[in-house]
Amino acid sequence: MKIVVDAMGGDHAPKEVIKGSVQAAKDFDIDIILVGKEKIIKEELNSYKLSLKNIHIQNAEEIITNEDTPTKAIKTKKDSSMVIGLKMVKEGKADAFVSAGNTGALLTGALLLIGRIKGVDRPALTPVLPTNTGCALLVDAGANTNCKPENFLQFGIMGSAYMKKVLNISFPRVGLVNVGTEEGKGNDLTKNSYMLLKNAPINFIGNIEAREIPSGNVEVIVCDGFVGNVILKLMEGMGLAFYSNIKEIFTKNIFTYLSAILVKNGLKGFKKKMDYTEYGGAPLLGIDGVVIKAHGSSNAKAFYYAIRQAKTFISTGVINEIKEYIAMPTGGNNVESNK
Amino acid sequence: MKIVVDAMGGDHAPKEVIKGSVQAAKDFDIDIILVGKEKIIKEELNSYKLSLKNIHIQNAEEIITNEDTPTKAIKTKKDSSMVIGLKMVKEGKADAFVSAGNTGALLTGALLLIGRIKGVDRPALTPVLPTNTGCALLVDAGANTNCKPENFLQFGIMGSAYMKKVLNISFPRVGLVNVGTEEGKGNDLTKNSYMLLKNAPINFIGNIEAREIPSGNVEVIVCDGFVGNVILKLMEGMGLAFYSNIKEIFTKNIFTYLSAILVKNGLKGFKKKMDYTEYGGAPLLGIDGVVIKAHGSSNAKAFYYAIRQAKTFISTGVINEIKEYIAMPTGGNNVESNK
Repeated sequence: MKIVVDAMGGDHAPKEVIKGSVQAAKDFDIDIILVGKEKIIKEELNSYKLSLKNIHIQNAEEIITNEDTPTKAIKTKKDSSMVIGLKMVKEGKADAFVSAGNTGALLTGALLLIGRIKGVDRPALTPVLPTNTGCALLVDAGANTNCKPENFLQFGIMGSAYMKKVLNISFPRVGLVNVGTEEGKGNDLTKNSYMLLKNAPINFIGNIEAREIPSGNVEVIVCDGFVGNVILKLMEGMGLAFYSNIKEIFTKNIFTYLSAILVKNGLKGFKKKMDYTEYGGAPLLGIDGVVIKAHGSSNAKAFYYAIRQAKTFISTGVINEIKEYIAMPTGGNNVESNK
Repeated sequence: MKIVVDAMGGDHAPKEVIKGSVQAAKDFDIDIILVGKEKIIKEELNSYKLSLKNIHIQNAEEIITNEDTPTKAIKTKKDSSMVIGLKMVKEGKADAFVSAGNTGALLTGALLLIGRIKGVDRPALTPVLPTNTGCALLVDAGANTNCKPENFLQFGIMGSAYMKKVLNISFPRVGLVNVGTEEGKGNDLTKNSYMLLKNAPINFIGNIEAREIPSGNVEVIVCDGFVGNVILKLMEGMGLAFYSNIKEIFTKNIFTYLSAILVKNGLKGFKKKMDYTEYGGAPLLGIDGVVIKAHGSSNAKAFYYAIRQAKTFISTGVINEIKEYIAMPTGGNNVESNK
């Protein structure tokens, strides 16, 4: 199995990308191809005193930055690490691509260079969110700010396939984010999506209110990319605000420091529970190839888990699972013909 | 000043409504009219050994429940506490109406029975959210799930007027919730709203991502009612999840109990900071009268603060402030003529 990793993407590239990749290549039985400026990658790799026989380099002289316009970048920076990495997946030279680079460019590039699964109208960006009881997949977190009911149907199907295969949840509960739980609530989009999801070959539990997300009442959260982006970022922001407050509480004086020591394990456990690094990055579900978007601020540990996630994604056959469900009569195979 | 309070609305009516009202009537120099089933209200009031000369009763034999359909309820339950309370404001028999009842019915009732401020296209439901540095007004939290750019412009104006007058913030920062901070980001609605807000007579700071809400980077959050509802409920859900985890951490054993004692003040302070009860309920901005929606689960304290909020709303002249701004050339006075 070959996983190509964008050595130039993310806030801490290439150092942390390479550190995580080296560890992953050591722990998992896979080949890793680091794509990017060969000279820089080689220099970085030299600092490791390991035998690196399953780490390879693919030179790419250009870099797509966060300031680049997605479509323009993909079309003009043909020698960028992102374009070359995606092409390697398309051409079968690699089984997956992991990148912490420009999200928009990665989405556009995956669509243009690899393409969609047959029958899928809109691929989605789907991060895993931590919840009180485990985790949930957010479909979509920002790839599609304008959606149709048929997209929501496919989001539910693709999300279910991922949670079933990669996270081993037998009947992932799928919830539609809405302003109330009763059927018939919401805007035109949610109203029209409800019956499609209800009739789909998934475990649809109906509308959910956003307050149910942290409590872990669902494993697949269906919403448009605008709402999903708000959910993702608000959870991040709330987490940061909580931590800064907790830190302030415990660092006030000698007694509060002592208090912190007494609940050290509990706080650690809580932090671990809320840390979604271990689930990896956000897969691009609906693309006919494995593409994982790692968080822009990923450190070595995050890259390590994103690579592990890519490995599981490939070996469990999520894409075939999606293909099978999309092909079912109620699974959204009529979407393309309706366009 | 006369404030009419819906004695039959909310999960803890009439007990907590009356308890909060009695305290408010005692502390603030106002008259309170409790509207609802006279017999029940009288019985409840009898348990108070206070002189209740500024507490009055307005009988209303019907109750609008949370299961009622808003428009139908307002049109058919003419002898309900909500309909009578709203009519009293319209007819000048009271200066404000406070209710913890059916949100949809209150919005519909306020629109049909009191009406909009001249020039305002869509009134909004606007709760105050706690932030790390103070608070922010969410405009809109669910009154309008489908919005136009002109609505966003007016949301910014109405929110600014409220924060300036009621919460005494000289130049409230107004942010447009979006998927990125750069101008030109987002869906058609946010893209088309940006310039309108930029040219409005308010302190518009541009697009904000949802992660900036808890950190307190803005005082007025502009978004449609669907997104706003997600924000409001996700914050509630995150708060609950966080508290349940903290509780678990501190109640594990004798050492963690001791730890809790050592940081008791800090935890209390944090809880107080995150508790938005003191800011009152959610005003219905854009209605040509003062209407406050208290949270359905409001206790006596929450009603007390919602009544205080109504008093400040009236005395600071928020409605006139909105009228003045809406009448300005860039203030949205062209909205109605564009319809």
